[in-house]
Amino acid sequence: MKSDGRIFQLATEDIPKKWTNIIPNLPEPLAPMLNPADGTPVPLEAMQSIFPDSLLEQEVSQKPEIDIPEDILEAYSLYRPTPLIRAKFLERALGTPAKIFFKHEGVSPTGSHKPNTAIPQAYYNKQAGITRLTTETGAGQWGSALSFAGGRFGMDIRVFMVRASYDQKPARRIMMQTYGGDVQPSPSKNTEVGRRLLEDPDNYPGSLGMAISEAVELAAAEEGTNYALGSVLNHVLMHQTVIGNETKQVLDSLGLQPDVIIGCHGGGSNFGGIAIPYILDKMNGRDIDIIASEPLACPTLSKGLYAFDYGDAGKYIPLTRMYTLGHDFVPPTVHAGGLRYHGAAPIVSILTHAGVVRSEALKQIETFEAAMLFAKTEGIIPAPESAHAIASTIRAAKACTETGQEKVILFNLSGHGHFDMSSYQAYLSGELEDYEYPEAAVKKAEAALPQVKIEAGIK
Amino acid sequence: MKSDGRIFQLATEDIPKKWTNIIPNLPEPLAPMLNPADGTPVPLEAMQSIFPDSLLEQEVSQKPEIDIPEDILEAYSLYRPTPLIRAKFLERALGTPAKIFFKHEGVSPTGSHKPNTAIPQAYYNKQAGITRLTTETGAGQWGSALSFAGGRFGMDIRVFMVRASYDQKPARRIMMQTYGGDVQPSPSKNTEVGRRLLEDPDNYPGSLGMAISEAVELAAAEEGTNYALGSVLNHVLMHQTVIGNETKQVLDSLGLQPDVIIGCHGGGSNFGGIAIPYILDKMNGRDIDIIASEPLACPTLSKGLYAFDYGDAGKYIPLTRMYTLGHDFVPPTVHAGGLRYHGAAPIVSILTHAGVVRSEALKQIETFEAAMLFAKTEGIIPAPESAHAIASTIRAAKACTETGQEKVILFNLSGHGHFDMSSYQAYLSGELEDYEYPEAAVKKAEAALPQVKIEAGIK
Repeated sequence: MKSDGRIFQLATEDIPKKWTNIIPNLPEPLAPMLNPADGTPVPLEAMQSIFPDSLLEQEVSQKPEIDIPEDILEAYSLYRPTPLIRAKFLERALGTPAKIFFKHEGVSPTGSHKPNTAIPQAYYNKQAGITRLTTETGAGQWGSALSFAGGRFGMDIRVFMVRASYDQKPARRIMMQTYGGDVQPSPSKNTEVGRRLLEDPDNYPGSLGMAISEAVELAAAEEGTNYALGSVLNHVLMHQTVIGNETKQVLDSLGLQPDVIIGCHGGGSNFGGIAIPYILDKMNGRDIDIIASEPLACPTLSKGLYAFDYGDAGKYIPLTRMYTLGHDFVPPTVHAGGLRYHGAAPIVSILTHAGVVRSEALKQIETFEAAMLFAKTEGIIPAPESAHAIASTIRAAKACTETGQEKVILFNLSGHGHFDMSSYQAYLSGELEDYEYPEAAVKKAEAALPQVKIEAGIK
Repeated sequence: MKSDGRIFQLATEDIPKKWTNIIPNLPEPLAPMLNPADGTPVPLEAMQSIFPDSLLEQEVSQKPEIDIPEDILEAYSLYRPTPLIRAKFLERALGTPAKIFFKHEGVSPTGSHKPNTAIPQAYYNKQAGITRLTTETGAGQWGSALSFAGGRFGMDIRVFMVRASYDQKPARRIMMQTYGGDVQPSPSKNTEVGRRLLEDPDNYPGSLGMAISEAVELAAAEEGTNYALGSVLNHVLMHQTVIGNETKQVLDSLGLQPDVIIGCHGGGSNFGGIAIPYILDKMNGRDIDIIASEPLACPTLSKGLYAFDYGDAGKYIPLTRMYTLGHDFVPPTVHAGGLRYHGAAPIVSILTHAGVVRSEALKQIETFEAAMLFAKTEGIIPAPESAHAIASTIRAAKACTETGQEKVILFNLSGHGHFDMSSYQAYLSGELEDYEYPEAAVKKAEAALPQVKIEAGIK
């Protein structure tokens, strides 16, 4: 490849054949999940009612690499390798000496990085004899990725979609249905927890937490049905490393090494996907600034506590050690809906705690200003989530303008914004607000942490 | 390149440096445009109030190739070369021995092939000292492409958007505004014709014809303002040949020649873009079936008359010789809004009349069935317009299944359907209707043709 091009595209046969599993090389071991009742570790087998053994094995595997099965590689070939793009026009607009590259995950069928894990999750469940997957979705990114992937492997996909989004944002719902997904507004009458929730009219618009509860209930109760989660879990982050491994292949062939790596951070999957393949390099002494970019309205890594907490509002799943703003923290309704999770992936939490990666919390308006500049210079209208990575990139590039350093800045463009135009409308009409996480909320989060006596020899 | 891959991507430096101009090699010469009043040819200079000389020269140029200026190549590099994709999964679903390739123009910033001509039109106007371009748009494909291109060259873009779409389909409007375009609902109070039209409340929802009239009036009246058209004209089709020329480069390197070439047909620009670079091959004896795929609800090439007719409902522009369903023909509101033009590009009309290309008229439901199969197999949700090309491709591939022929079928995927999800909703809910062009309408069209005494030695 010539280094003066703009679009760098590997061939189909260059799709990486292995995922990178960072677990054996983490600076500290993963903590087990704990039973909230007594603080004892929850055995992996307790999850067998909703996950197949193959994914549970990946969840704790000590192998540094895991082979990608042929059928998954074939499904990846629908949109992978995704292009790595030199953001020359953004560089010029900023007058920066930095070289900016971005990985364009928005070219996937559903417009984000989510199919990278939806495909393997559908595949491994199919292999285990599962015929149906349930999941929850907010605005629809994850639900559409799983609907697409399920369709490929001939599985039924049942998506519980937060009713407010179901009613107000029909485009993603129709996309899921086009791929063959069965979409239900949540809370629904199809689950016990849904029926109970519907007794209170206040619950009618739903929430992600309620939708998770419905999806998990169904998966646990129905024979042949499992549950799929789009972020946070170790195996999800591992599947996403295909992003960083492709990127590395291209940059290596150009003789380039990133000095700065940036991904937006919600649950951790797209950030992990771009960053994990570079983590060992950094731990082995290479100077790389790895930045998780998050909203100041929900600054999990920047302001959260590092503690055992519930992963869901309904307290259905075991306690996980992670950065958390408290399981009952309700972030303001910023437009980057995918970055509103109160917790963080355990892997990203460990890396942050150890100082291998750092976080940056951004105001909403700064991210939309970055998105507008990106659209006008590079042509692509980014998802509001990805706009956080762009805003951090612009900060880093401007710093280079001042110092004159010709750094290589790499960021992950996790998705396009075609289904987020109403957010741009809010920005263009001046209706967008900046929210700041109130410092006092940390105390509240601390008080809300589960009061368990933690055994299991956890530091 | 290896021929067993799926995504074939040229590098930035492979973007073709020349457009193919078919005018000197057409089977019969282009007819001049005529004055409707007396049938005399309209001199090119009559258009100087709305087009720059450079584009008017291209409109009649006899050079078989025209160099693409460096600045346009640079802007093209934002998204070009676009990938050529082997539709392996569609092939498998059809059980066809045919090899199906598609050019994915949906990866452009605005999601269709339209920027291929929006960029040069903005560039040449800028070179001519023009600071503002006006245009019309229906659902918004062309308006967003021009807004994007104008933004790149620092020009004001003023888009008159059919008010019904402006009100009901806000996403494309917001996209135009994000790129910096000024979007006005049409009819507007900003033009004379708009004010006159608004006197009749029936005109309030607007139409493409009304929007054209507003855009042309403003361009003709304002100093430094020109008009830009997204299809039909010779220079527009020429700009689009970058599609076919890139395709040819890849297929040549794979040692392949298309046996069938398919594009959907509205005004002719995306069809011309993929087909024109292969026209000379066919005229020189190579056996290629070149198919323009159009809706049966608006079968311009399949059922239209080959005659001089008005290009616009308002009769503002000179008479053009083309296939036409009559300038006052109002096609049913099929979802492929971009294929509802009553006429056809003069170039495509000549090629059809001479039998170099042929047309195929399809029912709406067949096209959506094709789109659904394509989404499920290839992952991409196509624009309803592009679904026509897919439906014709499926027909051709099924024919190969029967005959056992291993033909190479090439089609142009002119755009994605992310802003057309309501059309898919109509299909999924069973609300979609098939419309057929009534045979009697031909007689009506014939009677409505302009009654001019045609001089100028036209055959």
